[in-house]
This record gives sequence, structure tokens and C-alpha cells, in this order.
Amino acid sequence: MGTTQLESVPEPKYWHLKTVLSEALDSEFSVGEILPNERDLAARFGVARATLRQALEQLELEGRLQRRRGVGTTVAPPRVGVAVGTEQHAWPGAAGDAWQPLDCTESVPPSAVAAALETGADESVHTVRRSRVSHGQPVAAELLYVPASSVPDLSGIDAPSGPARARAVLRELQRLELEGEDRAVELGSASAGDAKELDRLPGAPVLVVTTRFFAEGRTAALSVATYRADTCRLTFADSGGVEIHHGPERQAS
Amino acid sequence: MGTTQLESVPEPKYWHLKTVLSEALDSEFSVGEILPNERDLAARFGVARATLRQALEQLELEGRLQRRRGVGTTVAPPRVGVAVGTEQHAWPGAAGDAWQPLDCTESVPPSAVAAALETGADESVHTVRRSRVSHGQPVAAELLYVPASSVPDLSGIDAPSGPARARAVLRELQRLELEGEDRAVELGSASAGDAKELDRLPGAPVLVVTTRFFAEGRTAALSVATYRADTCRLTFADSGGVEIHHGPERQAS
Repeated sequence: MGTTQLESVPEPKYWHLKTVLSEALDSEFSVGEILPNERDLAARFGVARATLRQALEQLELEGRLQRRRGVGTTVAPPRVGVAVGTEQHAWPGAAGDAWQPLDCTESVPPSAVAAALETGADESVHTVRRSRVSHGQPVAAELLYVPASSVPDLSGIDAPSGPARARAVLRELQRLELEGEDRAVELGSASAGDAKELDRLPGAPVLVVTTRFFAEGRTAALSVATYRADTCRLTFADSGGVEIHHGPERQAS
Repeated sequence: MGTTQLESVPEPKYWHLKTVLSEALDSEFSVGEILPNERDLAARFGVARATLRQALEQLELEGRLQRRRGVGTTVAPPRVGVAVGTEQHAWPGAAGDAWQPLDCTESVPPSAVAAALETGADESVHTVRRSRVSHGQPVAAELLYVPASSVPDLSGIDAPSGPARARAVLRELQRLELEGEDRAVELGSASAGDAKELDRLPGAPVLVVTTRFFAEGRTAALSVATYRADTCRLTFADSGGVEIHHGPERQAS
């Protein structure tokens, strides 16, 4: 069997069930509605509960269903498009930035961050914590790592901690000329801290966006942003400023 | 307890174990090495097997471990950075495109695709299937949907099917002036067909990149690309052509 024969790949039973369930969600259920319990659903579709559970897990992964403790399984609203990056290159905290600074600490970053920033293994960096809210819901949590060398004129006196300290670091960072940035997206799992902030269970799948900001020929700051994978689709506006009428945002599935 | 008190969030036991295991992977194991069985690992770290399994699942989600049927759990190589999009806007199939055309069929696309392309509900579109290989490994599978109106001069005679047909569709598409494109990334699960092509199990988490190509004031083509989430980090070069010396690519965790 050649790999070009898509039609001839047998689909597992739960996959077929997933498709049937997906259509039922579209036609019979509304957003937020609680699904019948597993026993009733399995009986209705004539499948084993293990098969049903696999199909429900797939639909959860695809953002069609939400499982919440004490509530049950509900029909999820369509994923929200969350813009990542900016049309114009800009430092974090520049005008129009969607992130809210929460606090700022000095701490030794994870070794991969230290390597990217070329700081010493035990060297503390400013760690700005920010959060992002979209449509009233927390969608992302960020740690922005800024080595002391990127903000040489930062004074420890006027704003030693909290959001004011975070804003002071961002303000000082903007004195550097931003030469470029790059970005990577990968799958991760929510730490306990992120999970709490994002209203998820620890270990839930998340989309991790790592952004490197370049200035003076080096990585002057590094952002690790954790987005909810269940409710977000990350959008990259890349159309060169062309005005486009946008079609429906739902994922092709 | 305020949400700004990161330190005071209690980490679940498996999360702590995950960190410890992660350090052990760095210091004691090499890439490709098979981990001891669950019973031995649980004994070594003094945890219940359920806790161990949760930690292993997290490490798998983060791309540190691979579980393969008949082999066991092995230490995964670092994720490969896979460039998404181009510095210069270009149609699929233009010079430098990393995708290999496999075949082309005419079929009715999923309803969300039809809506984005503004084709009729039962209207067939050209569906080009392409695959992408990086470092000798299949990393992504794509379906590129092209309505007949975007390739009006396509002839059905000289290349009715297969890769030649796919190339003919791409060639005709390039006659249009590309006005812009946009891109969204979200979490999905591998269909049976994608799973086979990507050497994964059906239902495995994948990163789905949807790209809309705009021409003549409308969406002239739509690409749905499915990337392996375990081995790939998607990179978005966005540095405006600045030459940067790149640091280590490993995710900060």
C-alpha cells in the first residue's frame, strides 16, 4: 500500500466516532452545554466506553470539548485567535503591547535561557512576569528574562519590586535599538504556576512561544510565553499590511 | 495567596519528579538510550508508579522522551527547528520551498475550508498533498486546497494525476500575484492518514499550521499543514534579514 493512497488507510473506530460526535456537536449542542454522561453516550453510539473516552480525548485535544472538574464535559467555544508578535518590530512593553506586567524578580534563569543570553551559570537576571488576557480570559503567561547588561542604567531605588519594577525594566530595555527578533513555537505542558495562572490543571498541553530579541549583536532579552492550547490559536499576521476581508476562523478538520 | 506569589504555588509530586528525572536525563543518559522499566525507575526515585507515569507523560509532551511500541521509552534528541513561512512572501512551490508534492485530487473540502475559500458546499477543489522531510525524518504533512477559479488555465490533459498534476496546479497558482498571507498555529491530533505519514500513532498531538494565501482580494489557496509536535519546534524568522549569531535552540524549561 503506497502512502499516496489516503483513502485506503483504515481509520480506527474511535476516529470514526470522533467524526460522528463532532457532527453531533455542531447540529445538536450549543456552546457551554454539558454532554450526557459517558454511559449514555456510549449506549447511544453503540460503542464501548473505552472507545468513547478515546474519541472524547481527541475532541478535547482539538479544542471542541472542555473537561472541567466538578462540571463535566462541555462544548467548547471556538478557539480565539491570539496575535503573536507585531507587524512592526517592537520591544516588550512598547505601545500597543497586549501584555500586563505583574512583577519582577532577580533570579538565576534555566540553563537554556542562560546559554541563549550568554550569562554566567549562576548569574541572576531580571525576570519580568507578565500575563495576557483576551476576551476576559487569561490566555497566556510570560517570563521575560533581561540580563543586567541590557538595562545598565536601571536603578534599584525608585521601584524595587512589583509591577512598577517590571515597567522600569521594560522602559530601560527600550533604550536599546532593537535589531531583530525571532520566534519559535512548540508543544509543552503547563507547570503548576502557569496552570494556576491560566486556570488549567498542571500538565495540561500548552503552546510555548520563545522569542529572542536582538540588540548590539546579541540576544538582549528572551521571552518564554505559555499559551493555553485548548482555547487559543496563535495567529501570525504576515500579510504586509494588505487589507484583507477575513473568512471564518475555525480550524479545518 | 496572590497569583503573584509564584514560589508559594505547591508543585505536585510528579512535577518535582519530572524536574529530577529531567536532570538525570541530562547527566546520565544519552540520546536514543532506553530507559529502565517503570518498576525500577519508581523504586530508584521512591515514588508510586502512577506518579512516575505522570512524570514520564509530561516529559513526552515536552519532547524529552519518546515512547515507541516494541522499543520502550527512549531519550529523545533535541527538537529540530523547522522554519515556517518564508522571509519573502512566496506561493507554495516557489523556489526554495521545502515541501515535496505527492499527488493531487479533486475533492470537496471540509466545510471550514470551503467557507474560507468561498466555494460552494458541494464544490470540488484541487487538493494537493505534500510532505516535508527534515534531517531524513518526515516532519509534516500538508493539504493545500486550491479552488478551480485560482487556476483557470489548468488543463486536465497533460498531467491528470500524481506529483506531476500537483506541480501543474502549483505552477498555475504562481501566475496569480500574491498579495499577502497569514498564518495560525494550533494544537490538533493526528488523523490516521497523517499519523501514518508522520510515523506516529493516530491521535498523537500535532501542531496544525493553517496558511491563507491572498490574491485578487480573496483567499486564493489555503494550506493545512500538520507538524509532529514531539520532534518539531516551529521557527518564525522575523529578524528582518539581520545576521545574528544563534544561541542554543533548546527550549527553556
